[in-house]
Amino acid sequence: MTIQEMGLRAQAASRTLMTSAGAVRNAALEAMAEAFAANEAKILAANALDLANARENNMSESLQDRLRLTPERIAGMRQGILEIRGAADPIGVVLGGGVLSNGLRTEQVSVPLGVIGMIYEARPNVTADAAALCLKSANALILRGGKEAIHSNMAVAGALREAIASVGLPADCVQLVEDTSRESANALMRANGLVDVLIPRGGAGLIKAVVENATVPVIETGAGVCHAYVDARAEIAMALDIVENAKVSRPSVCNALETLLVHAEIAAEFLPKLAARLTGVELRCDEPALRVIDGTPATQEDWAAEYGELILAVKVVPGLDEALEHISQYSTKHSECIVTNDYAAAQRFLNEVDAAAVYVNASTRFTDGGVFGLGAEIGIATQKLHARGPLGLRHLTSGKYLIYGNGQIR
Amino acid sequence: MTIQEMGLRAQAASRTLMTSAGAVRNAALEAMAEAFAANEAKILAANALDLANARENNMSESLQDRLRLTPERIAGMRQGILEIRGAADPIGVVLGGGVLSNGLRTEQVSVPLGVIGMIYEARPNVTADAAALCLKSANALILRGGKEAIHSNMAVAGALREAIASVGLPADCVQLVEDTSRESANALMRANGLVDVLIPRGGAGLIKAVVENATVPVIETGAGVCHAYVDARAEIAMALDIVENAKVSRPSVCNALETLLVHAEIAAEFLPKLAARLTGVELRCDEPALRVIDGTPATQEDWAAEYGELILAVKVVPGLDEALEHISQYSTKHSECIVTNDYAAAQRFLNEVDAAAVYVNASTRFTDGGVFGLGAEIGIATQKLHARGPLGLRHLTSGKYLIYGNGQIR
Repeated sequence: MTIQEMGLRAQAASRTLMTSAGAVRNAALEAMAEAFAANEAKILAANALDLANARENNMSESLQDRLRLTPERIAGMRQGILEIRGAADPIGVVLGGGVLSNGLRTEQVSVPLGVIGMIYEARPNVTADAAALCLKSANALILRGGKEAIHSNMAVAGALREAIASVGLPADCVQLVEDTSRESANALMRANGLVDVLIPRGGAGLIKAVVENATVPVIETGAGVCHAYVDARAEIAMALDIVENAKVSRPSVCNALETLLVHAEIAAEFLPKLAARLTGVELRCDEPALRVIDGTPATQEDWAAEYGELILAVKVVPGLDEALEHISQYSTKHSECIVTNDYAAAQRFLNEVDAAAVYVNASTRFTDGGVFGLGAEIGIATQKLHARGPLGLRHLTSGKYLIYGNGQIR
Repeated sequence: MTIQEMGLRAQAASRTLMTSAGAVRNAALEAMAEAFAANEAKILAANALDLANARENNMSESLQDRLRLTPERIAGMRQGILEIRGAADPIGVVLGGGVLSNGLRTEQVSVPLGVIGMIYEARPNVTADAAALCLKSANALILRGGKEAIHSNMAVAGALREAIASVGLPADCVQLVEDTSRESANALMRANGLVDVLIPRGGAGLIKAVVENATVPVIETGAGVCHAYVDARAEIAMALDIVENAKVSRPSVCNALETLLVHAEIAAEFLPKLAARLTGVELRCDEPALRVIDGTPATQEDWAAEYGELILAVKVVPGLDEALEHISQYSTKHSECIVTNDYAAAQRFLNEVDAAAVYVNASTRFTDGGVFGLGAEIGIATQKLHARGPLGLRHLTSGKYLIYGNGQIR
């Protein structure tokens, strides 16, 4: 099927979803969760095929791990769908309104975005997450996953489509593009009029390709080059805890720490203590840092790197101004943190750093839809349009003004 | 200067604006308003040059009228700036927040988008409007107007830049691209990392070109193929008033009516009365309509046309379903209206029509930032991301989470 045909089917499904009752969408989500139990063997067999191909193609162990499904992971996906089912209906929420002086009553309500396109790589769990979030928010979904996960994705999407149809909604609420060529991705990126929004999920290369090629509006998610600035007036013990937590607790995620900036006044005391705590972390240091701790000399590339692993770039700065300047230059505007007990420094950092989330005396690891009370998240937006920061169900909606008159003219 | 250089200057200006006090921005707006008085002669002379070129190039009278500045119009632009000055500061507004169970205090505040690019055609008043809205909302602005208005735009932008600098803000808060080649527009559309948002203002061709070429996020504004559906249970007098007002009061604007759908049961009574009211309006009718009124036979193109003048497409439909189907197919999702006294029909229309504004028993002409209480508008968005419908100052902002901790780790 062409992307054009899939888009038309998605449009039709979207019209049904737009006026569907929340109870029907919840019934579909229950059926989707049950479909994981009923189709577990089939999904695992399909995944085994993908994994065999991955080994044949010498896929790295960490990528294979992302691709791998297990009974536990399938149970996790099922649980995730049930949690989304339990969330409040994001559709039809009254966002505002009032009565104009001419008597017109206006009411702005939340409505689905319409048709969402999702372009992603080799994580089959995205297929289930995205389908559940879109169905809950009454959006039709076109999934275009990577070829590495095609068998897994077909098995998952097939089970989900059957489940959706079983409650009387169109199976085309969720469609999977089976053609994993570059052409199908490009067609989806340029399907204006059929696809309302595109959400890429994956590495920096994928996001960049989508931003550069898409004519459909894109919600950019992902890249996180997060900084912690340990100020001269930081409490040393707190700074050690925060830097260790932000770097080590889960280095592969986008809210993990990549670069540490340390005030020169405190570097000689702080850095050796930090190095003692961060055994197992490679430290890429500028010259002043290397005078007090061991490490690899940092290159220009290190300041812009999103390592995603146990590596930390370390730079000594003469003060807050230079820390702000460095962050302004290298930040991807995701999450940034200052550790200080200086009121004025904290205020300047909060005001002057341009990022989705700016922290004083807390780990950057908290930037998360669940933590921020948004429920399951579909990504963390690093652009400024539509929504910035964690994207929850409410961000998969748009608004519509309903206007009740009795003959008003202008 | 290249777009790249202008983008870097805009970034620098944006950083100053981001932390500027509202009082300083208001002082700049006052100075901008005064600059119009002080530079009136210079601006009119530059405009005369553009108008002379326009006549030489046989520009249509209506386009010349858009291009023309007069002392009254300059006074209007000045007044518009003062009104924007008087609006509440859209920056730093607390959008939400609370305390997490671990004691972290979160606060989401409104922040500027950053650098806004505006691509527009031959209306020099856009230069002043956009500059005032962006300055009020602490956004740096890069203007790329059409070559037809280049002298006027240079005079206006020059006066505005001087005014901005006079209060100590960077003149580069507002920059005008003096190179009006296609290359400069394309470079602006692809200035990712330098420009945060692009807002095209102009005809359908311009909007389409921007949507197709831009890799910078775009807020799509403009096209309005608006429908009125006169139901079998419409009050005839009310329907006549609404259709006449929506079509005739200001046919060039995007919330004006383009297509009338009439229920077959009421067509024989309603259409002759309407034709008698709409003298001076060309009616492009389908066959059933032509059986009861005179008019030009409508072609397929008429259903998709945004006339912007005194032409109305007229179609008789067997009922609400067919009206909804027609609207779904041809609407640009701007403003749609039903005239009826049938409760169920009104509810279905409100629920099933997908548009920025859906009206019962009122003219589509009310879709407007000022009317909706948003203040001066920068356009009316017909896409679903970020903001849908009239765009006011608040839509020129993004959000930022400020997070206050005392050592929390995850």
